Amino acid sequence: MEWRHRDLIDIDCWEKEEILHLIDQARNMEDLLDRPIKKVPALRGKLIVNLFFEPSTRTRVSFELAEKMLSADVVNWSASGSSTAKGETLRDTAWTLESMGADAIVIRHGAVGAASYLQRKLKHASVFNAGDGAHAHPTQALLDIYTASKHFSSLEGMKIAIVGDIVHSRVARSDMIGFKKMGCDVVVSGPKTLMPPELEYYGVKYLSDPKEAVRGANMVYLLRIQRERQEEGLFPSLDEYFKLFGADEELIALAEKDALVMHPGPINRRVEIDSAVADGPQSVILEQVRSGVAVRMALLYLCLGGAR
Amino acid sequence: MEWRHRDLIDIDCWEKEEILHLIDQARNMEDLLDRPIKKVPALRGKLIVNLFFEPSTRTRVSFELAEKMLSADVVNWSASGSSTAKGETLRDTAWTLESMGADAIVIRHGAVGAASYLQRKLKHASVFNAGDGAHAHPTQALLDIYTASKHFSSLEGMKIAIVGDIVHSRVARSDMIGFKKMGCDVVVSGPKTLMPPELEYYGVKYLSDPKEAVRGANMVYLLRIQRERQEEGLFPSLDEYFKLFGADEELIALAEKDALVMHPGPINRRVEIDSAVADGPQSVILEQVRSGVAVRMALLYLCLGGAR
Amino acid sequence: MEWRHRDLIDIDCWEKEEILHLIDQARNMEDLLDRPIKKVPALRGKLIVNLFFEPSTRTRVSFELAEKMLSADVVNWSASGSSTAKGETLRDTAWTLESMGADAIVIRHGAVGAASYLQRKLKHASVFNAGDGAHAHPTQALLDIYTASKHFSSLEGMKIAIVGDIVHSRVARSDMIGFKKMGCDVVVSGPKTLMPPELEYYGVKYLSDPKEAVRGANMVYLLRIQRERQEEGLFPSLDEYFKLFGADEELIALAEKDALVMHPGPINRRVEIDSAVADGPQSVILEQVRSGVAVRMALLYLCLGGAR
Repeated sequence: MEWRHRDLIDIDCWEKEEILHLIDQARNMEDLLDRPIKKVPALRGKLIVNLFFEPSTRTRVSFELAEKMLSADVVNWSASGSSTAKGETLRDTAWTLESMGADAIVIRHGAVGAASYLQRKLKHASVFNAGDGAHAHPTQALLDIYTASKHFSSLEGMKIAIVGDIVHSRVARSDMIGFKKMGCDVVVSGPKTLMPPELEYYGVKYLSDPKEAVRGANMVYLLRIQRERQEEGLFPSLDEYFKLFGADEELIALAEKDALVMHPGPINRRVEIDSAVADGPQSVILEQVRSGVAVRMALLYLCLGGAR
Repeated sequence: MEWRHRDLIDIDCWEKEEILHLIDQARNMEDLLDRPIKKVPALRGKLIVNLFFEPSTRTRVSFELAEKMLSADVVNWSASGSSTAKGETLRDTAWTLESMGADAIVIRHGAVGAASYLQRKLKHASVFNAGDGAHAHPTQALLDIYTASKHFSSLEGMKIAIVGDIVHSRVARSDMIGFKKMGCDVVVSGPKTLMPPELEYYGVKYLSDPKEAVRGANMVYLLRIQRERQEEGLFPSLDEYFKLFGADEELIALAEKDALVMHPGPINRRVEIDSAVADGPQSVILEQVRSGVAVRMALLYLCLGGAR
Repeated sequence: MEWRHRDLIDIDCWEKEEILHLIDQARNMEDLLDRPIKKVPALRGKLIVNLFFEPSTRTRVSFELAEKMLSADVVNWSASGSSTAKGETLRDTAWTLESMGADAIVIRHGAVGAASYLQRKLKHASVFNAGDGAHAHPTQALLDIYTASKHFSSLEGMKIAIVGDIVHSRVARSDMIGFKKMGCDVVVSGPKTLMPPELEYYGVKYLSDPKEAVRGANMVYLLRIQRERQEEGLFPSLDEYFKLFGADEELIALAEKDALVMHPGPINRRVEIDSAVADGPQSVILEQVRSGVAVRMALLYLCLGGAR
């Protein structure tokens, strides 16, 4: 396949075939992670800047490891104490980084559309969206699809139930689009007040009862509950949340027998997920973490021309 | 040329010929930045510590990129949360880093003379001043001279107008000394209250009217206005500052036709510079950023013996 | 010697012969630090995560340098702004890092037993304790033993006097165990209120008068006084502390003529140590710093299979 992308802004910019091609590459990359010497020189001499305007050790470290495994040179630029604090616009920060020779910028930003804006402003550097506001987190969707695809011969016709705070979740939005694109049936559950109005547009069904949503599912995807939201009064108490929507063994038993339990991490035990489920035989939560490195390696490799 | 420096503390420690030699080296380094594999092994196995007591993503990242392009090993040591917070003296921190095997220390510090003090205390490690208080920022002067020298066959007799808050600016001080040394005619403008008493000593003329300063200039150098100063009452409002001293197209039209517009960044649009000027055809602001990496590569290469 | 450890949790897990073997390796590593190209490829392609829940530039940088000298890939994960802040358990953070492919985790944590807990939870990754609460700091003990062993043909029968706040000091605890294991006679001094109850268990004698403790010692080990403690009322004023327990030339003169003056750093001049002593001919404080890098290189090399 002739690879046409040099950026990843949103999962909906990619064709299903492109996602499948990336997944093939990710498989090769994951094999590397088992070798005694994990590093390959594919991106030697490439400069990648991780530009994080929101704290996120998890995603940042996953990208950083992927970059280093491919032998790229990596610089971390965090917003606190940076030029941004001195009033510099995002555009000027981006131009500065490109002028310094950055071949790629990985951006996490609180504002919807930040990655897309950056892409339009830059001439040469690739842009990878590591999360923009509540909008998109496309590498999370790719790693979730990759993880699922290792367990099922095809995702076509599989049912995924996503449970939690959908409206504030970039993970949910990217996963809904991504799994729909792969031919899955997507249903969501969670407090009614935390559902976005555009579910119908995505072709996603809302079921207020998580039992109904999970019944017969091949994948149960639990979202992290952001404790801050509870303080804002958007949630019942965390205890109540667990009682109403938390995933315990009883809930998971309603899904298909070999159903996967997924979560983007970090998990809140006894809030959205019970330890028996998080650490149980159906959980692929740590597989997802590992997939994250492999998928990001494949992404960087394909988009930055390591393949050429 | 036999290179005699292993440190860079202040631009006034260097001869004009040495600056010209570094500029030649920087040209070679900049060529590297265009190659698909930017990295060269010149400083492989050298340890460089970036010791930043003031937040400065911009200068730190520029140094870090230069260090990594030369294959040095890089460790960032920031003051917050460090031994310094536990009451360690600068001298003891420096001795510690030297004992750990640091070949070079890049230091940014709020106190005038910190880099020079460090140099006197260290036995083996090189010291590079990345800004000490309002005193000196010599790599900024070098990259400004380098940028200008790419546009003019010689800087001899060229006129540079520096506009803004001179007294609080280490950039202004290093640039005044540097451009004078290269044979330029240096004039400054800005609020009278923000001029240092020693302008005459530098052989620099003050003109209260920025139009007079800019008229016939080959380079117009705009300084960042630190918003904090305004709060301290040292400035008129930012709007008024823009009206009085801000660089718009009208002001720049008074300079020579091919005059360069320069700024150390990060810029405040509509405070010290209008977007039409910052993004206009005469602006070399992003060239300066790129020059910064090339000049710092040349500096490290020459001083740390990559040339030997 | 067949090396059996893949972790270092506490100095008391190691046999004396193992410590001696590590010291031999550290000598080779220190030789590397004098070479123009310090780097060796021993741990190329290994991933090491520095997981610091407490601020510690000093130990973190020493580990980071050791890791980079051995060509490992290094990622720094600090607690602030991380998943931990979002309520993730230490166990889940550790599993995440292991899933990402970490071959080793260097952990500094405020809780006693954190490193040991991590080791029990991880399947493949090595764990190196960089300090857990007031419990242990085993690499500090190893580097202290290494430093001392360069000055004496054997530590058997040597006397070491440790002066300061013993009860809050993981350095003191690890050093007491370590030097006892090497056959030393260990005595301690300091304010009575700052002595732990288990001194007798360690076979360590307490002498309230530092003069008595230091008399005839081959090594005088001064502990950093944590200024916070003084605010908590645990200490007399810093001035008084210096008068009562601070190491000046007079105190050191009571020790053996060639006695070593040691300190884990960062030092408080005129609190626990006088400048004449810290910078005097008997001080090996900076040697200790250098030893720290060599010992950590040897540790990583042995435990991560660089030797195989």
